[in-house]
Amino acid sequence: MKAISTVSKRNSKEIPDIVIGRLPVYLRTLRLLADAGRDVTSSQELGEHLGISSAQIRKDLSHFGEFGKQGTGYNITFLCNQLQKILNVDRVWPIVLVGAGSLGNAIANYAGFESRGFRIVAIFDEDKKKIGLEMGPVFVDDFANLKIRVEETRAQIAVIAVPTHVAQRVADQLIEAGLTSILCYAPITLTVPPHVRVEYIDPVIHFQHMTYYLG
Amino acid sequence: MKAISTVSKRNSKEIPDIVIGRLPVYLRTLRLLADAGRDVTSSQELGEHLGISSAQIRKDLSHFGEFGKQGTGYNITFLCNQLQKILNVDRVWPIVLVGAGSLGNAIANYAGFESRGFRIVAIFDEDKKKIGLEMGPVFVDDFANLKIRVEETRAQIAVIAVPTHVAQRVADQLIEAGLTSILCYAPITLTVPPHVRVEYIDPVIHFQHMTYYLG
Repeated sequence: MKAISTVSKRNSKEIPDIVIGRLPVYLRTLRLLADAGRDVTSSQELGEHLGISSAQIRKDLSHFGEFGKQGTGYNITFLCNQLQKILNVDRVWPIVLVGAGSLGNAIANYAGFESRGFRIVAIFDEDKKKIGLEMGPVFVDDFANLKIRVEETRAQIAVIAVPTHVAQRVADQLIEAGLTSILCYAPITLTVPPHVRVEYIDPVIHFQHMTYYLG
Repeated sequence: MKAISTVSKRNSKEIPDIVIGRLPVYLRTLRLLADAGRDVTSSQELGEHLGISSAQIRKDLSHFGEFGKQGTGYNITFLCNQLQKILNVDRVWPIVLVGAGSLGNAIANYAGFESRGFRIVAIFDEDKKKIGLEMGPVFVDDFANLKIRVEETRAQIAVIAVPTHVAQRVADQLIEAGLTSILCYAPITLTVPPHVRVEYIDPVIHFQHMTYYLG
């Protein structure tokens, strides 16, 4: 008989995407507390760490079940495990990275992936001088081998770390190869079909958010 | 006499931070349209590009004034200029970067800063082997010179691109040197005084947001 999970994972359409977007931030903070040797925390403490109200945190978590008892707070290990299940990072996801420049190299050498649910299984470039170089956990592969490598690794997630002027073409080829989730470091907005999810990392977006308050 | 601006910049406390956070994304998309030779756009078109409803875009912009005419859409150049004024990026802000590893190198060589309101004026490291190296627009400086370089450049914004275990110490020293806005690439939550604003870039947060929908 299958164990009954305390996680009530409802249809994702019921839960606002902005709530889902905060769960990884809660998980990161809880793991930092656990690493610091802590066993129990509260929505108040989490809120102070994150600059979010404790009511918001309780409301966000309440979408998924009951994780704490009134007055005793949250058991950190338990809540981490539950959030990992909710976010499906109780396993390791293969990721392919396109672009073996300095940014790709920095991403490939980032130490925090494996413990948080991800592993870079391939890095691609079109530059013959980069193909074959060791970079982080793998050797740089020819981008022409994308499709076969995606089939082998069953990767669904890709990272784009190429110059802006080739980012859309790379995205098109990733989608053609069957990838459905793309994290894009190039400062553009990609055009993709509806079944593909794209997230962006662009430092200027953060700087401009800051300068609003500095003016 | 000072020209009357069409930008009504109210007390920032009136406008939700989440709205401010979307303005740089609108600006980036408008500039891409302008680069593609376009003169006019609509909230519908912007919404389709960004996966945001046109009503949300109109509501966000309405906090700051009237930018389009019913039926004729937005003049892209005009709206870009207004958003640049609102976000205070109608000037160039000096930025200091801490960490001259592969991530720091990637950030230093990012080509898109200057045209969007930012310039890296100093890169710091504590590693004697890195100090003096040319990296992007500057030479790597000794982190011990932070305070004097911040005074010279009047920088208010810093980027942390150092290993996780030193990130809090670096943040403390940045704040001590007078910096008030920090973009942190290390996967931790920094403890800072209330007057300091921190934003985070962490690819795993984006991956975990994606895997919620992939499970």
